Amino acid sequence: MTQASAKRIKVGIVGGTGYTGVELLRMLSQHPNVELTAITSRQEDGMPVANMFPNLRGHVKLAFSAPDKAPLTGCDVVFFATPHGVAMAQAPELLAAGVKLIDLAADFRLQDIKAFEKWYKIPHSCPEILKESVYGVVELNRASVAKARVVGNPGCYPTTILLGLAPLLGGKPLIDTSDLIADCKSGVSGAGRKAEVGSLFSEASDNFKAYGVAGHRHQAEIDEQLQRLAGGPVGLTFVPHLVPMIRGMFSTIYARILPEARGVDFQALFEARYANESFVDVMPFGSQPDTRSVRASNTLRIALQRPGNGDRLIILVVQDNLVKGASGQAIQNMNLMFGLPENTGLNQVAILP
Amino acid sequence: MTQASAKRIKVGIVGGTGYTGVELLRMLSQHPNVELTAITSRQEDGMPVANMFPNLRGHVKLAFSAPDKAPLTGCDVVFFATPHGVAMAQAPELLAAGVKLIDLAADFRLQDIKAFEKWYKIPHSCPEILKESVYGVVELNRASVAKARVVGNPGCYPTTILLGLAPLLGGKPLIDTSDLIADCKSGVSGAGRKAEVGSLFSEASDNFKAYGVAGHRHQAEIDEQLQRLAGGPVGLTFVPHLVPMIRGMFSTIYARILPEARGVDFQALFEARYANESFVDVMPFGSQPDTRSVRASNTLRIALQRPGNGDRLIILVVQDNLVKGASGQAIQNMNLMFGLPENTGLNQVAILP
Amino acid sequence: MTQASAKRIKVGIVGGTGYTGVELLRMLSQHPNVELTAITSRQEDGMPVANMFPNLRGHVKLAFSAPDKAPLTGCDVVFFATPHGVAMAQAPELLAAGVKLIDLAADFRLQDIKAFEKWYKIPHSCPEILKESVYGVVELNRASVAKARVVGNPGCYPTTILLGLAPLLGGKPLIDTSDLIADCKSGVSGAGRKAEVGSLFSEASDNFKAYGVAGHRHQAEIDEQLQRLAGGPVGLTFVPHLVPMIRGMFSTIYARILPEARGVDFQALFEARYANESFVDVMPFGSQPDTRSVRASNTLRIALQRPGNGDRLIILVVQDNLVKGASGQAIQNMNLMFGLPENTGLNQVAILP
Amino acid sequence: MTQASAKRIKVGIVGGTGYTGVELLRMLSQHPNVELTAITSRQEDGMPVANMFPNLRGHVKLAFSAPDKAPLTGCDVVFFATPHGVAMAQAPELLAAGVKLIDLAADFRLQDIKAFEKWYKIPHSCPEILKESVYGVVELNRASVAKARVVGNPGCYPTTILLGLAPLLGGKPLIDTSDLIADCKSGVSGAGRKAEVGSLFSEASDNFKAYGVAGHRHQAEIDEQLQRLAGGPVGLTFVPHLVPMIRGMFSTIYARILPEARGVDFQALFEARYANESFVDVMPFGSQPDTRSVRASNTLRIALQRPGNGDRLIILVVQDNLVKGASGQAIQNMNLMFGLPENTGLNQVAILP
Repeated sequence: MTQASAKRIKVGIVGGTGYTGVELLRMLSQHPNVELTAITSRQEDGMPVANMFPNLRGHVKLAFSAPDKAPLTGCDVVFFATPHGVAMAQAPELLAAGVKLIDLAADFRLQDIKAFEKWYKIPHSCPEILKESVYGVVELNRASVAKARVVGNPGCYPTTILLGLAPLLGGKPLIDTSDLIADCKSGVSGAGRKAEVGSLFSEASDNFKAYGVAGHRHQAEIDEQLQRLAGGPVGLTFVPHLVPMIRGMFSTIYARILPEARGVDFQALFEARYANESFVDVMPFGSQPDTRSVRASNTLRIALQRPGNGDRLIILVVQDNLVKGASGQAIQNMNLMFGLPENTGLNQVAILP
Repeated sequence: MTQASAKRIKVGIVGGTGYTGVELLRMLSQHPNVELTAITSRQEDGMPVANMFPNLRGHVKLAFSAPDKAPLTGCDVVFFATPHGVAMAQAPELLAAGVKLIDLAADFRLQDIKAFEKWYKIPHSCPEILKESVYGVVELNRASVAKARVVGNPGCYPTTILLGLAPLLGGKPLIDTSDLIADCKSGVSGAGRKAEVGSLFSEASDNFKAYGVAGHRHQAEIDEQLQRLAGGPVGLTFVPHLVPMIRGMFSTIYARILPEARGVDFQALFEARYANESFVDVMPFGSQPDTRSVRASNTLRIALQRPGNGDRLIILVVQDNLVKGASGQAIQNMNLMFGLPENTGLNQVAILP
Repeated sequence: MTQASAKRIKVGIVGGTGYTGVELLRMLSQHPNVELTAITSRQEDGMPVANMFPNLRGHVKLAFSAPDKAPLTGCDVVFFATPHGVAMAQAPELLAAGVKLIDLAADFRLQDIKAFEKWYKIPHSCPEILKESVYGVVELNRASVAKARVVGNPGCYPTTILLGLAPLLGGKPLIDTSDLIADCKSGVSGAGRKAEVGSLFSEASDNFKAYGVAGHRHQAEIDEQLQRLAGGPVGLTFVPHLVPMIRGMFSTIYARILPEARGVDFQALFEARYANESFVDVMPFGSQPDTRSVRASNTLRIALQRPGNGDRLIILVVQDNLVKGASGQAIQNMNLMFGLPENTGLNQVAILP
Repeated sequence: MTQASAKRIKVGIVGGTGYTGVELLRMLSQHPNVELTAITSRQEDGMPVANMFPNLRGHVKLAFSAPDKAPLTGCDVVFFATPHGVAMAQAPELLAAGVKLIDLAADFRLQDIKAFEKWYKIPHSCPEILKESVYGVVELNRASVAKARVVGNPGCYPTTILLGLAPLLGGKPLIDTSDLIADCKSGVSGAGRKAEVGSLFSEASDNFKAYGVAGHRHQAEIDEQLQRLAGGPVGLTFVPHLVPMIRGMFSTIYARILPEARGVDFQALFEARYANESFVDVMPFGSQPDTRSVRASNTLRIALQRPGNGDRLIILVVQDNLVKGASGQAIQNMNLMFGLPENTGLNQVAILP
C-alpha cells in the first residue's frame, strides 16, 4: 500500500489528561492511518499536550481545546478517556453527525441499566444507544465490533477474567461455574491520575493490600459477560489487590474441573481457541508469566497450571492494564471498526527490563 | 525488676549474613535480657557485623567468627539463620552441652521425614531430636514451646495460613476443609540475600508474578500443621506470588462456609480466639489490612470479609515476613523458652510510611 | 531511676495527620517519659489516630480532637506538625500558659523576617517570640536548646548540609566558602501526605528528577545558618532532587579545599567534632553510606571522599528525612529542653533491608 | 521506498543475554531494514531467545547459538553486548571478512591504551584496529561514524556528560573548564544482569547511595573526550549514584561561567547546536526534565538552569541508560554506517507513566 492511498482516520479524544489519554496519544501518534484532530480538556484549553506529558515532545503537536471549540463532529471516531457519564451525554450528537464512538469509561459496558445505575450512581441518559453498543473485547465479539457505531471498551479486570475463562465456557460443561475465584492484582496506574492520598507514592510503594473486597464496580460487568459466555448464571468471587508497580495486571483464576472433564486437554483447548489471535499468547503449559513481559504492549498472556494433575485448574493471566486493559484495546477496536488489520499500530514489543 | 536481677541470656547466631540474620541482630541488640555472645560465618571470620550491615553501626560491636572459634557451647540458646541442613548437623553437640536451639530453616519443622527429604533433597540426620522438637507458632503451641529444647521456627507462608485458619479448625465443622485456597503474596526479601538473577532489582521491580505454582516447599509444612489442627485431612491449593516490595506478606485465604455454619459469627470467633495474644490483631470486620501496617514489627493482622454475606469467607492476613514470619517469631519463641514475657524486646511500632 | 520517680512530660501535637505527625506518634508512644495528652485535627475530630494510621493499633489509644476541645494549655510541650503559619498563631497563648513549643514547620527557623515573608508569603505575626526562639539542630546549638521555650525544628535538607559543613566552618579557613555545591536527593515522603499529582505513585515511581532548581524555600534557612557558622557570607548552590523511595535523604556536598589547607586531616577533624554525639556517625574515610543504613532511625551518617587526594572535598551525608530530618530531631530537642538524656526513646536501630 | 528495494542489513549479536542484548533485540526486531541473523551465547546454545526474554515471544524466533556455530562472518554488522575484552578478540577476523563491528563494551572507546589497561585490567590486543575505530556519539562524530568499520559505542554516563557540555567547549571560552562537576544518577539496570548482592531488589530498592566516588571507569573515557572537545585539559569531578529505578539516567552538571561570558545566551547556544538532531531535545530554559520522559526511547533531553542569573550554569541531562545510553545509540550508529536515515527504527515514544 502506498502512503497516498492509505486510509486516514480523523481521531478526536475527549479528556486526554489522564493515563488512558496519554497512552492513546502515545500509540495513535505512531499509528500509520491516524490523523490526530482534536483533544479536549476544559481546564487546559490551549496547552500543548506535550507540556503536560513530556514524553510526547517531538511526537505530538496538538494542544488541548475547550470542548466547545473542538471540531469533534468532523472526526471519524472519538475516544472518551473521561469519567463515567461524559460519553453518554455527547453520544447522541456525535452519532447524529456520523461519528463513531469508543468509550473507555463504563457508559456502554453494561446492558443491565439497573446494575449500571447501582454501581455508578447516575441515571443512564441514552438507553437506546446503549442497546446497539458493543462490548469491545475483540476476541469475543469480533463480528459485532466490526459493524459497531458505539463500543464500550471493557474494564481492565474484566478483560483478563473474560479472556482467561472464555475457552472454558459455552461448550460442554468443563468447570464448576458456580464457584469461580479471581484473585486479581493491579498496578497503581489503574487508579488513574487523580490526586488521592491512597495513590501517593509514600502510601502505595513498598506496600500491598486488597481493596474493594466487599464489592467492586467491575463485578457487574464481569458477571454480565460471563453469563453471556456461559449461557447461564455464574458464581464468581472477585478480589482485587493493589501492587506497588505502575503498570501491569495479574489475575490468578481458580476453577474446579468437573469430574466428567478430568481427561480434557485444557492446554490444547486454549491454544486452539486463541490460535489466530494477534494479542492473546497462550504460553506453554505450566509457565509462570510475569507482568513485565507485556509492559507497554497490547499482548495478553495466559498460562495454565494444574497442581498435582488434580481437579483445580489455575489460569494465570497478565496484561498491561493501560494497553490491552484500556487504550490499546480501544485502538484494536478502532482498527476493526475501520476495516484495518487489527494489529495496525499496535505491534510494539514489551519493555523488559 | 531491677537491672541487676534481670535475667541474662547468652545468645549465639549461626550464619548471620542473610536477612533473617540481620533482623535477629537488630532486635536482639535491643532486647533487655540478651547478651549477644557469638555469631558465626565461615567466610567473614573477623569482620565486624556492622561492616556488612551498616544499620548496626553503634549498636552491635560483635564480629563474625569462623564456626570452630565461636564459643557456641557456652551459649544458652543458638539461633540458626542458615540454609537447610546446618542446624541438624550441629544439634546433637549443642543439646549435649545444654544449649537450646531455634532453627529458622526447615530442619525441625516437618515431623514427616519423607516429606522433608522429598522437598529438601537431603536425608534427615537426627530423627530422634526431630521427634522432641516443637513447631514454633507460639499462638498454637504455647505450652510445648515453653518446655522445648529445640524449636523449628515456622516458614513465613505457613505462619499466615495457620494463624488465618486456626480458629476455624478443630471444633465443630465450619468450613469445607477439602477445598481451601491460599493465594499468597510475598515481598522479595523472602528469597533471601543470595545473588540470583530472579531477585535482581531490574527483574523484580515494577513486576508481579506467581512462582512455585506446581509445588512449593512450604506446602508440606502447611499441610502437616493444618491436618494437626483439623484432626484430619485438609485440601489446600497454595499459590505464592512475588511482590515488588522488600518486606511484607499478604495471604488471601478463601474458605467455603458449610451450610450448617452460615449463622456463625466468625468475627466473634476470631476475636475470642486471639483475645489474649500480643501479636495477633483481629481487625474490625470488613477491614482491608495493608502490609505496611506491620512493617518491621512482630504483629500479624487478620481481617475477615464475607462478600454479599454469602458462603465464601475470605481471610486476609498480613505480616512482615522477616519479623513475625521469621526472626521476630524466633525471638518470641526464645522469650517463652526462657520464661520471659512473650513480648520482651518485640514491641516496636510498625514503620509507616 | 525507678518508674515512680521517672519524669513525665505531657505532650500535645497539633496537626497529626501528616507523615511527621505519625512519626511523632510512633516514637513518642514508646518514649518512657512521655504521656501523650492531646492531638488535634479540625477535620478528624473524634477519630482514633490508629484508624488513620493502622501501624499504631495496639500502641496509641488517643483520638483526634478539634482544636478548641484539646487541652493544649495543660501540656508541658506542644509539637506543631502543621503547615507554616499555624504555630506562630498559637504561640503567644501557649507560652503564656507555660507550655513549651517545638515547631516542625518554618515559623521559627528564620531570624530574617524578610526572607521568611518572601518564601512563605505570609507576614510573621510574633517577631518577639521569634527573637527568643532557637534553631533546633542540637549538635550546633545544644546550650541554647536546653534553655529554650520555643524551638524552630530545622528543615530536612538544612540538617544534612549544616551538619555536613559545620566542622569546616568558623575556625581557620579550610574551604572556599564562596563556592559550595549541595546536590541533594530526597525520598518522596518529604513532600508530605498532601494529595498532589506530582507525588502519585505512578508519577514518582521509576523516575528521577530535579525540582526547585531556580529556588527552594530551604535555601534561605541554609544560608542564614551557614553564615552564622562561617561568621560571614557564604555562597551555596543548592539543587534538590526527588528519588523514588519513601524515606531517606542523601546530600552530596562539594567543597574546594583552600591551598593552605591541603595538608589538613579532614577525617580527624570531623571525628573530633562529632566524637561525643549520639546521632552523628562519622564513617571511615572513603565510605559510601546508603540511606537505608539510617531508615527509621535518628542517626545521620557522614562520609568524606577526596578523589585523587586533590583539592575537592566531597562530603556525603545521609539521614531519614522524617526522623533526624523532622520528628526524631524534634524529640531530641524535647529531651534536651526537659533535662533528659538526649537519646531517650530514640535508640531504634535502622531497618535494613 | 518500496518494500522490495529496501536495504537489508544482516545483523549478528554476540552475547545477547544481558540487558543491552534484549534491548538490541527489542529494537532490531522492529527495524524495517534489519534481518536478525545470529545471536551467540556459549551457555544457552539452542535456547530460543524468547524463552529467556518472554517480551520477545511472537516477535523474535531466533535461538542462541554457541559462538563456533554462529555464522557471524556472513553478517553485515555484528554488535558486541559482551563483557570488556570480547570484541577485540574477535575484531580482526570479522573485519577481515568484511563485517562491520559495534562494540557496546569499552574495547574501542579509549584511544589512550594505558588508561584502558589501567581501568579494565587487560592488555589491548589490537591497537591498530583501535586507531581506526570511532567513538560513537553520532552528534559529535557524525562524519567519522558514517565511514567507520569499527565503532566504540560510548558509556552511558559519558553520553550525558559529553552532550551536556559539548556546546560549551571548543569555541571561545565560556566556562571554567578546570572545575566541572558531574553529579550523576543511574537506574539499577546500568549494573547489568549479573547476579550480585548489591543489585538485589532488597538491597537497591527504597535506597539511595553513591558509588565509585574514588574512581569510576567512565572517568577516563569522559576525560579523553572532553579534552578532545575542549582542545586542552579539562578538570571534572564525577560522582555516580544509584537510584531505585530500573532505567534512566540523570546528570546534574555544574559549570562556572567565565566573567567574559556572563552575557552569553546559553539557551540559544544549545538550541542552535542541536537544532537538527533527532535525538537531542533542548527543553525550554528552566525546565525540569524527568527520566520517565525518555523511558524506553532514544531521546536525550537537556535543560539549562542559572539560579539567580548568577555565574553558575546548571545543565540537567536525562536519557534512558539502556537506549540512548547503550543499545539505541548503537543502532543509531548502525543506521549511519549503512546510509540509512539516522532515526530508522528508533522513533518510539517514551513510556509514561
